Amino acid sequence: MKNLERIKKQILRILVKKPSTFWELINFQDAHLSLFLEALKDLLDEGKIIYDKPLFKLKKNLPDIKKFSDPGCLFCKPFDNDPFWRILLEDFKALTQDRPLPTSDYDQGFIRPEDTLKRTAFIYLRGDLEDAEVFILGDDDLISLAMALTGLPKRVVVVEIDERINTFIKETVKKIGFKNLEVYNYNVIESLPEDLKGSFDIFVTDPVETKKGLKLFVARCISSLKGPGSAGYMGFTHREASLEKWREFQSFLLDSGFVITDILRDFTTYPEEENAWEDFYRTYRIMKEFDLDLPEVDWYKSCFIRFEVVEGPHLLEITPPKDLEELYFDEEAWATPLPSYLEKES
Amino acid sequence: MKNLERIKKQILRILVKKPSTFWELINFQDAHLSLFLEALKDLLDEGKIIYDKPLFKLKKNLPDIKKFSDPGCLFCKPFDNDPFWRILLEDFKALTQDRPLPTSDYDQGFIRPEDTLKRTAFIYLRGDLEDAEVFILGDDDLISLAMALTGLPKRVVVVEIDERINTFIKETVKKIGFKNLEVYNYNVIESLPEDLKGSFDIFVTDPVETKKGLKLFVARCISSLKGPGSAGYMGFTHREASLEKWREFQSFLLDSGFVITDILRDFTTYPEEENAWEDFYRTYRIMKEFDLDLPEVDWYKSCFIRFEVVEGPHLLEITPPKDLEELYFDEEAWATPLPSYLEKES
Repeated sequence: MKNLERIKKQILRILVKKPSTFWELINFQDAHLSLFLEALKDLLDEGKIIYDKPLFKLKKNLPDIKKFSDPGCLFCKPFDNDPFWRILLEDFKALTQDRPLPTSDYDQGFIRPEDTLKRTAFIYLRGDLEDAEVFILGDDDLISLAMALTGLPKRVVVVEIDERINTFIKETVKKIGFKNLEVYNYNVIESLPEDLKGSFDIFVTDPVETKKGLKLFVARCISSLKGPGSAGYMGFTHREASLEKWREFQSFLLDSGFVITDILRDFTTYPEEENAWEDFYRTYRIMKEFDLDLPEVDWYKSCFIRFEVVEGPHLLEITPPKDLEELYFDEEAWATPLPSYLEKES
Repeated sequence: MKNLERIKKQILRILVKKPSTFWELINFQDAHLSLFLEALKDLLDEGKIIYDKPLFKLKKNLPDIKKFSDPGCLFCKPFDNDPFWRILLEDFKALTQDRPLPTSDYDQGFIRPEDTLKRTAFIYLRGDLEDAEVFILGDDDLISLAMALTGLPKRVVVVEIDERINTFIKETVKKIGFKNLEVYNYNVIESLPEDLKGSFDIFVTDPVETKKGLKLFVARCISSLKGPGSAGYMGFTHREASLEKWREFQSFLLDSGFVITDILRDFTTYPEEENAWEDFYRTYRIMKEFDLDLPEVDWYKSCFIRFEVVEGPHLLEITPPKDLEELYFDEEAWATPLPSYLEKES
């Protein structure tokens, strides 16, 4: 959505909580001073707020706007203060208890439930969740369900290749009672269906991190976005992506018309036990390079990155991987399991 | 310093604390799996560590390596667990109590003492502080003194235009007893002295945020760096820099050979009371655009950004501002005070 609209949402949800000064409000929104002021003036012009110096106040009740819920510190102890988030975490854990386990065929692995909620909360903090149309490419993390639990998005669309996950999401969202979630079977090798192109405010993805796979995933996602003010969110690691790869990818983002607004280092953790991927390790390159025992601590982490369209987005030409092996493997894929069909071949 | 050396330092300071497994260690360093493994093999080859499967251990005492001190969560409650950081914060506050107050002549304003220490700790976490040669352009935050208090850097050089600050740093560092700090009077309009070029592992700066001033500050800093593996740290706001400006600046960084590794949103706060800049407000553009009272809460915040040289750095041509007005003002400078010499003119 347009940046101005996002800022207005960030302002209104605070004012639903309590009248606030200019300086208080500025701490709960993301804009430059001039855009922040424009948002306030817009809200005054629209008759939604009044300025009773020094306080801005709601002019009337806005039943559509939910008051701001503070998720707490997303870097250490989130969700322990505000009941909205605390209950959401409990519900999300309960609902996803019997989730499908990762398969090596799609290089899967999910982050901790609280980390999925941390991502959701970070998107919420940015004003990118309420009334947003959300595109999710690949969802073994089940963030679509976390978003559905908030009740905030206007529309959530999941495209995912694994039918087990698609079925799980479709069944579970019925229990939640959230009506605006759609799930489609989709292989990233194919171009995005026309009716999904140019239709979303944000996307969320956890791409494979091979040079070609990375750009393929993100290019598909970029084609889903509406335009300036739309934003991409993705997980990206240092574990399997070098700084050279990071740099090349950042150039790709800037050339596509984005600015990078956030890089949260090691924001999410992949729990070993829950992923139950002990059996994958024997095919990891790292285990062949050095004589190691299986891990006794969680160690696979990824950063969370936000980038926002400033112009375009421009849809750049990319070279798709020529086969599944090139999609999942390059010289930096040191902790990626060999899919069963490749294992049989080798 | 070379990336490999940085990773080795991150590993050793953990092993000084206790023997650790491969998977434990990986959580305390920043590298790709392959570089991490290379660092371990290097340390084994150098006879500094041994691998007593599954534990890596120090082979002998390494008196030069200080054990890792955990600064805690830098986003909410830092420095409350580890005595190293807790005492450092107390000392830093005591030492900087009588610091020079900001003058509008240089668009000054300092962040909270705990935020200066948070920046220092973040640099430390990255392995960029121990034995590092540090270049600081502009130091009203007095981060040079925080670094001196850690005792960790090999060399700290401050270049700063304000003689009051230079004198304060020189006097105070004597009390600390840190010998490796140098302070030079320097105007950013001038090219960097030859003997400071290409000599540093990291730089830290809080640039003016005008289009031309920003690049001028950072270009001077880039010319101070040694090469690949060197890193830049800077404060940068959303309050006075639009996303368009952020994007253009990120392109500049990538073109200069950097990858952006961290963007910590609103990491630091400028305290209103301590800065005592009430008198500046009457000249701020924001106060002319809207009828506002002086702020009753702290509201000016900046992000902290880290970027690392992957190639080069390439020293790009920049267009320096033609005068001081163009250095300090552009159409986005809405909370920048009019310097006294410009005020007299206008």
